[in-house]
Amino acid sequence: MRVPEKLVAAVRQARLCVIASHANPDGDALGSSLGLALGLESIGKKVAVLNRDPVPDFYQFLPGSRRITSRVPAAARRGEGLLLLLDCNSINRVELDGLSCRHTAVIDHHETESDFGTIRWIQRNAAATGVMVHALLGKLRVSLTPAIATNLYTAISLDSGTFRYSNTTARLFRISADLVDAGADPAFVAESLYDSWSPGRFRLLLDALETLEMRDGLAIMHITREMFRRTGTSSADTENFSNFPRMVSATALSALFREIGNGTWKVSLRSKGNLNVAAIAERFGGGGHRNAAGYRTDAGLAAAKSRLRTIYRQVRAATGHPRPGRSDRR
Amino acid sequence: MRVPEKLVAAVRQARLCVIASHANPDGDALGSSLGLALGLESIGKKVAVLNRDPVPDFYQFLPGSRRITSRVPAAARRGEGLLLLLDCNSINRVELDGLSCRHTAVIDHHETESDFGTIRWIQRNAAATGVMVHALLGKLRVSLTPAIATNLYTAISLDSGTFRYSNTTARLFRISADLVDAGADPAFVAESLYDSWSPGRFRLLLDALETLEMRDGLAIMHITREMFRRTGTSSADTENFSNFPRMVSATALSALFREIGNGTWKVSLRSKGNLNVAAIAERFGGGGHRNAAGYRTDAGLAAAKSRLRTIYRQVRAATGHPRPGRSDRR
Repeated sequence: MRVPEKLVAAVRQARLCVIASHANPDGDALGSSLGLALGLESIGKKVAVLNRDPVPDFYQFLPGSRRITSRVPAAARRGEGLLLLLDCNSINRVELDGLSCRHTAVIDHHETESDFGTIRWIQRNAAATGVMVHALLGKLRVSLTPAIATNLYTAISLDSGTFRYSNTTARLFRISADLVDAGADPAFVAESLYDSWSPGRFRLLLDALETLEMRDGLAIMHITREMFRRTGTSSADTENFSNFPRMVSATALSALFREIGNGTWKVSLRSKGNLNVAAIAERFGGGGHRNAAGYRTDAGLAAAKSRLRTIYRQVRAATGHPRPGRSDRR
Repeated sequence: MRVPEKLVAAVRQARLCVIASHANPDGDALGSSLGLALGLESIGKKVAVLNRDPVPDFYQFLPGSRRITSRVPAAARRGEGLLLLLDCNSINRVELDGLSCRHTAVIDHHETESDFGTIRWIQRNAAATGVMVHALLGKLRVSLTPAIATNLYTAISLDSGTFRYSNTTARLFRISADLVDAGADPAFVAESLYDSWSPGRFRLLLDALETLEMRDGLAIMHITREMFRRTGTSSADTENFSNFPRMVSATALSALFREIGNGTWKVSLRSKGNLNVAAIAERFGGGGHRNAAGYRTDAGLAAAKSRLRTIYRQVRAATGHPRPGRSDRR
């Protein structure tokens, strides 16, 4: 992985680094932000780590997570500092006002959406933004501490499904080995990510599974606002829910409808193999990636589900999706 | 990892290698057996791979799985050949008659139970028997093919919970990187292991979750013979079921009761952290490891559950189990 020289130079020159990532942050956004922050501080930089949202409970094990704030530093409001935008490449995804740094750099592994950033480093084949931060810290000769390693390992872990997705490469394993050598504890991170659910979150999963309908490779679940209320949970708690129906071999597409307002639903789509869910989401005005996408709808729940079934059948027929139970890699 | 010289010499000398593992084989037993078999064949050995049981459906993706047989070759009945006993160290675990090879070697990572084997290589700190086979093949200068690599990667993957258990080390990641370089496909293996459930198996999980009772860190589920019948499933389909209630932070012990005969129940115990479930199982005449154990009971279901609750409270009080939601590593 080639780290752009001008990025390394810009970071070396900066006295204040302002690290920001997308709202509703996930493990890669948080882990790469905190890993970079701690690394830059260790070589004498002044650092602020921004996010619109508080760190979800189940990510508070990340070393340094308490310093994430939504308050933009006064210097950054005046245009000072180097803004490092992580795990997204459009400033709109940050959803914070007053971020006026004149120097800006993007570090991201998503598809390009915008032309924001004086320096743009977008590496679509990187499994996680955490991998890119690992490479950048290497160039800056930062020694990896256990705290930095834990953050970067979590970023990698989350975005690779803990080495289960097709972005898991020999290189990802070697980087992970280095992070373990530096003090990351795989069992601790896995337990924090996967085995630290609140009872309410588990209750919500069971309730959601009771709504499950599976037909022709399409699995649909829904969660009403009443279900969130009853279990004392919120939208953030539904992370990974779509993966459960995906365990079934025949499932090509797993859809989760979450009620976010009165009669407004957010729909998450997760597919296996070569079914392109971005194409389905686009039909509803949404978007995303090949195997993970989403959209919003104001239609009634029954009508919205029925509409999804129709589009699913069309897209599946058009792509001639052959065998949902296997990835297309062999 | 030091491979015993006499093991390497014995394999080099042998013309016929008879590979056997424990009945009810898991991914490590099967993957290490097949990986070794294919490796030894590539250097000109005649090889038989034995198991009492047929390969479960969800392991039939393993390259070479069709050649596993319960028929002991005539030569082995006559005492010829080198018996390589994998992933167990007592010949009783194999449950096959007529295995009379005069030369015998054990390759295992479990605690010692027996003194079987002329050559005994037991490496308790190995994450999987597959890791030991990888080292042995290295000593024998076997070139790893994609088929060998897939088998060994699966063995490692299964026994480390795909890099989630505390046996996940930097070394395990580096070996995995080598296996990926040799042709193992992490996403294919993960999909085969975790996302290839039959609809009946998923139905059974949902039915089992409906029986879930959680109290004071003890989660109990049960599966009746009628539930197996209704979903067209068998005991093998319940692998991993106990892990679902473990997702809840407060769960210290997850117990699954399976009806195996009229009124006879097999109970699997899975714990997190420092709760020793072997001590609980022993109170019922069973046994196992610190975090995974089991026993049988003829008591009625309600009485058996109640008895487990009592013993659980006693053991937990005695060990002063401090915090179920975290491993004892930090």
